[in-house]
Order: sequence, then C-alpha cells, then structure tokens
Amino acid sequence: MINIKTKLPGNKSQHILKKLKRYAGCYCHVYPFIHSHKGKGCYFQDIDNNTFLDFASQIATLPLGYNHPNLLKVLKKYNSTPIKYAGSDFLVEESLNLMEELATITPKGMNADFLVNSGAEAVENCIKIATRSRPNSKFAISFEGSFHGRTTGSLSLTKSKKLYSKNYLKIPTKTLPFNDSAADELKKIIKKSSAKEVGFVILEHVQGEGGYRIASKYMVKTVRKICSHNNIPYIADEVQSGMGRTGKWWAFQNFNITPDIFSTAKALQVGAAVSSGKNFPEPGALGSTWGGGSVLDMAMGLEIIKTIKRNNLLSKNKAHGDYLTRQLAQLDIKNPRNLGLMVAFDLSSHKEQLRIAKSCFKNGLIVLPAGLNSIRLIPPYIVTKREINEAMSVIERVLKAS
Amino acid sequence: MINIKTKLPGNKSQHILKKLKRYAGCYCHVYPFIHSHKGKGCYFQDIDNNTFLDFASQIATLPLGYNHPNLLKVLKKYNSTPIKYAGSDFLVEESLNLMEELATITPKGMNADFLVNSGAEAVENCIKIATRSRPNSKFAISFEGSFHGRTTGSLSLTKSKKLYSKNYLKIPTKTLPFNDSAADELKKIIKKSSAKEVGFVILEHVQGEGGYRIASKYMVKTVRKICSHNNIPYIADEVQSGMGRTGKWWAFQNFNITPDIFSTAKALQVGAAVSSGKNFPEPGALGSTWGGGSVLDMAMGLEIIKTIKRNNLLSKNKAHGDYLTRQLAQLDIKNPRNLGLMVAFDLSSHKEQLRIAKSCFKNGLIVLPAGLNSIRLIPPYIVTKREINEAMSVIERVLKAS
Repeated sequence: MINIKTKLPGNKSQHILKKLKRYAGCYCHVYPFIHSHKGKGCYFQDIDNNTFLDFASQIATLPLGYNHPNLLKVLKKYNSTPIKYAGSDFLVEESLNLMEELATITPKGMNADFLVNSGAEAVENCIKIATRSRPNSKFAISFEGSFHGRTTGSLSLTKSKKLYSKNYLKIPTKTLPFNDSAADELKKIIKKSSAKEVGFVILEHVQGEGGYRIASKYMVKTVRKICSHNNIPYIADEVQSGMGRTGKWWAFQNFNITPDIFSTAKALQVGAAVSSGKNFPEPGALGSTWGGGSVLDMAMGLEIIKTIKRNNLLSKNKAHGDYLTRQLAQLDIKNPRNLGLMVAFDLSSHKEQLRIAKSCFKNGLIVLPAGLNSIRLIPPYIVTKREINEAMSVIERVLKAS
Repeated sequence: MINIKTKLPGNKSQHILKKLKRYAGCYCHVYPFIHSHKGKGCYFQDIDNNTFLDFASQIATLPLGYNHPNLLKVLKKYNSTPIKYAGSDFLVEESLNLMEELATITPKGMNADFLVNSGAEAVENCIKIATRSRPNSKFAISFEGSFHGRTTGSLSLTKSKKLYSKNYLKIPTKTLPFNDSAADELKKIIKKSSAKEVGFVILEHVQGEGGYRIASKYMVKTVRKICSHNNIPYIADEVQSGMGRTGKWWAFQNFNITPDIFSTAKALQVGAAVSSGKNFPEPGALGSTWGGGSVLDMAMGLEIIKTIKRNNLLSKNKAHGDYLTRQLAQLDIKNPRNLGLMVAFDLSSHKEQLRIAKSCFKNGLIVLPAGLNSIRLIPPYIVTKREINEAMSVIERVLKAS
C-alpha cells in the first residue's frame, strides 16, 4: 500500500538532491526523491522510507517489478568480477543463452541478434544493418511524434520534441504523418527521389515518449506494403513497446506484419538489433565493446523472458491493460486508450498534464508524462487488480482536486 | 602462470562457439574461447580450464583485473533488484557518489558530468554539449586514424577503418592529419568556411583502435591554441586513454592542455561526458534511460578510482609501461612506444600482425591488434614485473618462430 510519511522530498532525499545539482550536467528530474533500492513488486521505498506505487516501471525497464524472487536468484549467482566483458571480442556463454531464448519469441526466420548497451544503441545498429547494403541511400524516413533515442542517428529520426535535437548535427531524414495518409506521402517521396535513396523506414507501432499514440492498422499495412514493394527496409522500434508489454511479444504482432529489422531494449535489460542472419553485414561492420558482454544484464533478460512465459504474463498484460482502461473511461479525461499494458489518457493542456503527474507523485503514485498532454500508465507486468484499483483511486482524487 | 591444457579452442568452448555462430548477427571473434568468469589478477580461465595471461584487459575495461577483492566487496553489497534504474529521471545515490569522486580527479572547473551507458554514448553526448550552443555549425572535425565509437555521431568522426562506416548515413566531417601540420590544416578550414561553421574538434591524445599513435606535443599545443582563439570547442576522447592508464588520470594531462569537454568510459565501467557545469545545455537537451542509473557499474567505477588512488597505480602504470617498453626495445620489432601503460609495437605487415596476435593466444597470452600493423599491450594496472617478464617471454618466442 502507498504510504507517504514525510513531506516530499523528505529530508534525506533533499540533502542528496541538493548535492546532485552541483555535479549533474543538464540536471533535470521529473520526481524529487532518491530511491532506496528497497521495494517489492509494484511498490518501492525512497530513502526517507516513503512507499510509492510504481506505474512507470523505471520507464518500462522493470517488467517484473522490484526484487522479484526469480531475479534475486540470478543476482545471487554472480559473485565474480568483472560483470561486464568486452563481449564482441571475448565471448561469454550468457550471450548465447539469451540469444537462444530470444529466438523462441521472435518471428520465424528473425533469429539473429546484435547485442548492445541501450535502446539508442539498438536503434543505431538497426540503422546500420539497414543501410549497409544500400550504397545509394541518401536519407532515412521516420514519423512525426516519433522517439527513437538520443544518439545522433536515433535522434535524427526523433521528431517528438524540438528540445531534444535543437542545433545538433543530424543525418538527413524525411517525416511521414502518423496517420492513414502516411502511405501516400511515402509514395510521393519515392516518386520524387527514388526508392534507392531511401535508407529505411522506421516506426514505433505504439509511439512511446511521443504520446502513446497507437498506429492505425491501415497505416501499418499500407506502409509495410510499399516498403516491401520497393525493397525499402522496414524497421520496427520495439524499445519501449516490445518484450510483451502490449500483450504480444512485439507490438508489430498486433498489426499482423513482420518488419525486416527490429530493436529491443528496456524490459530486456540489454539492447538488441534483431533480424534474419542473412541481413547482417560482414564481420567488423558492427561493434560494441560491452555489447554481448554484460553477463548479469543478459542473465536477467533471459530470466525475464522465462518468467513472462511461465507466469502467462502476456495474457495478463492484455487483461490488466483493458481493465485499467475501462476504469479510466469512467473518469473526466480524454481519449483513454491502451494496447495491452501500454495505457494512456489525455488532459486538456500541457500545464494540466504536469499538474496531474506531480499531484499523483505527492499522493504516492508514480506516472509518466508523454507527448504534450498525455499521461502514460505502465505498471510492471505483475500488477494486480487491487493495485490498479489503488492507482485509480489516486488518479480520481487528483483529477477532482483540479 | 599461463597454463594451456587443451588444443585451442577446447571442446567445451568449441561447442558453444558453434552455436553462437547461429545466433550472433555480424559474428566476429578475435579469439576462439569462452570465458569462465574465473580468474585472479591478470590471469583468467576459459571454460576448458586453460589459464591465460590477459594483456588486453577486456579492451581496457578491466583496470583492476579479475576478481579484485575491493570489487568483490562492492558486488556483495548489491543484493536487490533492479540493478539498473532509469537514472536520469529516477535518481539514486550511487550517481552522486561517483560524480563527487570524479570531481576529485578531473581538472579544476570541470566537475559536471552526464552519465551514460558506453564510450560511444559518452562521445555522442560530448558532441551534443559542444554543438547545442552553436546554431551555425555545419560540420565536425576529427583526425585521420581516429576511433570514437560505433554510433552514427561517434562513427562519423571515426577514420581508422573503412570497414566500420561504409555506406552508413553520416554527419558532415572534415579530417586533420595526425601530425604537426594539423594546426595549419585547421587554419585553412576556418579560413575557407568560418569558425562558426565548425561544430567542434575532437581527438584522442593517444589514438586507440587506430594504432596507439601518440600525438606530438606541438600538434596538441597548436591545435588547442587555434580552437581557443576561435571559440571552437576542443573535445578530448578519453574513452580508452583515460582513468589513469597513461600514468596521469587523463591522457591530455601529458600534454599540458585542458579540453573544453571530454569523454570517459571503459575503465570507469560507465560512460560520462565531462565539462564545466556552465557548458551543459538546458534540462531535457540530454537524456538516457539507464544513464546515471546502473548502480552496480557506478559503485564499481567509484571503487576503481579509490583503489587507483590508494594503491598508487598511476605511478605504477608509468613505471611498468616504461619497463615493458624497454624490454620490447630489445626485440626485433618496430617502433616500441608507450605513454604509461598504453604500450604498442609495430610489425612489418597486417598479415604478420594477425599471425603474432594469434600465436600469442595459442601460447596463452592475450594481446590486441590495433591499426593495420600494431600490437597493443594493455595489462591491468595491477600487473607486476614478473607478469611482464612472462608476457615478454611469449612475445620473444613467437617472434622468433616467424
């Protein structure tokens, strides 16, 4: 149960936050508290011993919540150092174990991976796999509202907020609308330049940071068709939406298409670019010192997949996401929506969005803003109806206080 | 002591390597063995129980060797999950502890950091810090032979091998020679376009992957001067050379200059872009889900810095690097050289380079190729004279067998 004992931030948190400001370049915190590393399931304590209910899941990286017994067992096994090897050059067995398990949940034929350190690096490597065999490619295509990461390649494709990319040097891109006219716009681009000049098309089937917007089936079907017809690589960015959150292993599976390449990270604990083995370039064309070498992270990712399977969490994600969205539909908010346990609703303004997020926090519920006026609700996959009801009572209270 | 008991690769390693090939996209291994996670100091065992002497240090990421007691103590403390938090948004104390400690070893005034997941991401963030306030920047400048990473930004700056970047979409760059004419070439570029169009200049003061080439003092002094005079940000890439390997905390300190921004990673266990707090852009301009949130990696980095200080490893690195290089000078090889414990020598050809690296491996000594015909020797900082002598006897034997 939520239990807020101090004013927020508490004294201990405040003390550390003050010091952090001095050293942290580009200091920016959504919520002013310091995590204690204590917690269980969907709840955690800050260092002032306040208990929060976490509907943000460390930005979708915590599918099994805090201190899951299966993951504690994995952690216990790692009692030697280093924890990270130079995994591309000096191989470890954990890398094979994770890739073998990944192959059981990826579409048929897409059973090769390049393992890296983050979602951004996963997208960067999807980009490289796509363009290596396209010597004439001049630009890449992404969608308005998209978020693909913060490194130069992934950031060039990111269109959600100007704040993220202002003045940075970028690779050339063109942007499609995230709606049913996307395919027509794509056709125009191909006609104006040529299919060969298009490096690839990349999209999130549910936009994450950009506002939890769910692609239309028509848009996905028609864009995928044009890509196939013109031999343009179609990349699905599954960094946030993948690994079972939508009720299927990969969000694109809700749309009955298969991409040529896709990225995964967050819930997997490591990043990966996934494709068919034959799509990967020659040895040396990709590289990463720690990629495929973070033994603890890879062992965690492996156990997360196994636990999702064993505990039937895919269907639970669908059921709980639908339940939460039905509850939201009772409230005075806009556009409650979900694909599995990717749940969101809209508010009347950006100001109201920030107010609601902050008020939820003050009441012990962690939620995440997305886009300009949305709130996303992404609890761990192990969330229960009781916890959803507890979260709903906070949201209801906070909305009424406006 | 080195102890090779099986033919290489051993049976167990061979079994896993065969399977790995099936799943690992862009499969490419330098040395065919699987690490057992067993080891002590500079030695480790593969899963076939062969004992190797490691003069590659997991590509410079293992400054204290295998199973250092201080690091095992840190590992033991982490008995809760997650191990990685969304550290930019949900703050943890480990982030502050690491940054406070970093501030004790960075040049005066350069005490703000942005923490990330890898060396590539560290360079990406240096790029962003440099260009954010330069709305007119049109291109970046790096050096021939340079290696800065494998993501689009860091890779655009990388000039060491065509294999790494062929056909990929890149940001615009210009390239300076890595010699005393660099400053004149830089002047020409500035004259032809304008200083405002130059996003930044980035260099490794000792080139790593490009061949362990040590910059000339004249080159560094004159390039730094022109950058200062024209308000062009000067970025030092310390991903491989930093954290004490050269006998000083940062390689640039051997050249009596201070950069505006620098990157670090590898030996630190996490990546960081370091600068003065005032150089960092506004909140939200940088971001990374796991950056500043890998609690175990950050705690390891902190303990590594403390151990380097406590055990006087900077001066030991200088002494041992000089000793190793004096031994190399007795052999029939070209250009033995070092800056601290970044040690290298050249061979007559690329073929000979690969032969020597492979023969060392077969004899139980792990070394790393660099550039087209160099071998780098980068043992852990805890290496002893006895271990250096053991490595030298392998190198001597292998050279004679040619």
